Amino acid sequence: MSDAAIGIFDSGMGGLTVLRALLAQLPNENFVYLGDTARLPYGTKSGETVSRYALQAADTLMQHHVKLLVIACNTASAYALPALQAAIVSVPVVGVIEPGAEAACASAPNGRIAVIATEGTVSGGAYLRAIKQRDPNTSVIQKACPLFVPMAEEGLTDGEIATTVARHYLVPLKAERPDCLVLGCTHFPVLKGAIRGVMGPGIASVDSAATTAQAVKEALASGGLRRKETAEGARSYLVTDAVERFVRVGKIFLGAPIDPAAVELVDLR
Amino acid sequence: MSDAAIGIFDSGMGGLTVLRALLAQLPNENFVYLGDTARLPYGTKSGETVSRYALQAADTLMQHHVKLLVIACNTASAYALPALQAAIVSVPVVGVIEPGAEAACASAPNGRIAVIATEGTVSGGAYLRAIKQRDPNTSVIQKACPLFVPMAEEGLTDGEIATTVARHYLVPLKAERPDCLVLGCTHFPVLKGAIRGVMGPGIASVDSAATTAQAVKEALASGGLRRKETAEGARSYLVTDAVERFVRVGKIFLGAPIDPAAVELVDLR
Repeated sequence: MSDAAIGIFDSGMGGLTVLRALLAQLPNENFVYLGDTARLPYGTKSGETVSRYALQAADTLMQHHVKLLVIACNTASAYALPALQAAIVSVPVVGVIEPGAEAACASAPNGRIAVIATEGTVSGGAYLRAIKQRDPNTSVIQKACPLFVPMAEEGLTDGEIATTVARHYLVPLKAERPDCLVLGCTHFPVLKGAIRGVMGPGIASVDSAATTAQAVKEALASGGLRRKETAEGARSYLVTDAVERFVRVGKIFLGAPIDPAAVELVDLR
Repeated sequence: MSDAAIGIFDSGMGGLTVLRALLAQLPNENFVYLGDTARLPYGTKSGETVSRYALQAADTLMQHHVKLLVIACNTASAYALPALQAAIVSVPVVGVIEPGAEAACASAPNGRIAVIATEGTVSGGAYLRAIKQRDPNTSVIQKACPLFVPMAEEGLTDGEIATTVARHYLVPLKAERPDCLVLGCTHFPVLKGAIRGVMGPGIASVDSAATTAQAVKEALASGGLRRKETAEGARSYLVTDAVERFVRVGKIFLGAPIDPAAVELVDLR
């Protein structure tokens, strides 16, 4: 079982920022990544639809005999994590919201947290609940930044457009003087430069990728599921559409090339 | 048969700019509009996937006994019109590319045409072929403007962001000194102000909505399918996800409110 892969699910390419963090912390593990590129993005879709898609994706990854499932999409974690944990009882299921909330609380000495995310994640309020559960006295402000998603996918991560759009979304948030800013969408870490340019160096930016990787490491350890450290890790990718675009755009998020031969087209219907 | 509705299909909300033009020219007709909001956008997806989605949508509209089918999405028209016309032989099927190409040729006295569209429409080359078929001596330059789609859906149609992004895409196009600019995506007409701000008043902007409505009018007339002019027209909407968002965002494109009671959730699987 310890040689089985870790399954990672995302709506498309953004979750590759989480895979990147996992590879850094767990270089000996095998990974299979599923991106639902035929139906992305999830951030503007309803909770019912996102949950249906997430259950289909989890089912496909389970057929690949994964030993742990990471929901590397904030919108899917926000809407569907309880349903996924109820449906999949044989392996641990880890989302990105709880690790993100944990990191946010640790970075907010004055109890002031700002969260940026997709429309769906903001309106579902999952970060708000996860943070308040840890510390009910924390003040949380949320802001949907939908345009950050296609900007990141187009590689418009710095320059005039990135700065203009970042100012549009973030100047009102900065005025609230938060201690930290949670990057509540896996696309946003690639825009860190533009975001920091508006928020300034005094406001910590919290990216759930690293804390999610830490949570996965702990879940593997407590389940006795760690692969032996002398083994070499492999990774493969499943996508529901457009392999060429996944390879081309995905490297923005993974920060490394993706081998087209490791990408397989699958159908989740 | 003449009382039957005209079916309109789009990936989401953009096709409402085509419905708007149809309502202006054919106010007595009944319309049923289908937006595939559970899987939008189509502009970044593969031809195979877009064609599969378009055939499912057309099938659903045919079950509503429409008398004519309008493919009010440039990407779906570009990839799937021949397949749709082959699959549906009982009613006329009208796309937006041919009427757009027709209007472009009429607006290009010096034979220089620029086309802006989604990634999919540009890489498929359907406008290029349709224009060259009419006039092989025409020079056509194409440019994908992916960010225009989510900007339009977010209502960021003027102001600093619209101007900055329009400059990014269009300054290189303007340098080619085209006679006209084809708005080859149904989302783009709501950005006309920002587009004209960069291109200047000397470059005609060609929007296929009006010419598509004219083509529909002619197809109805030649098939004896026009509804009598004393009748009052009705419209209904089918969406595959997120009725509330369709009503809220759709009015940007329709230019009028959408009655939530007229919107029904459907499943295309």
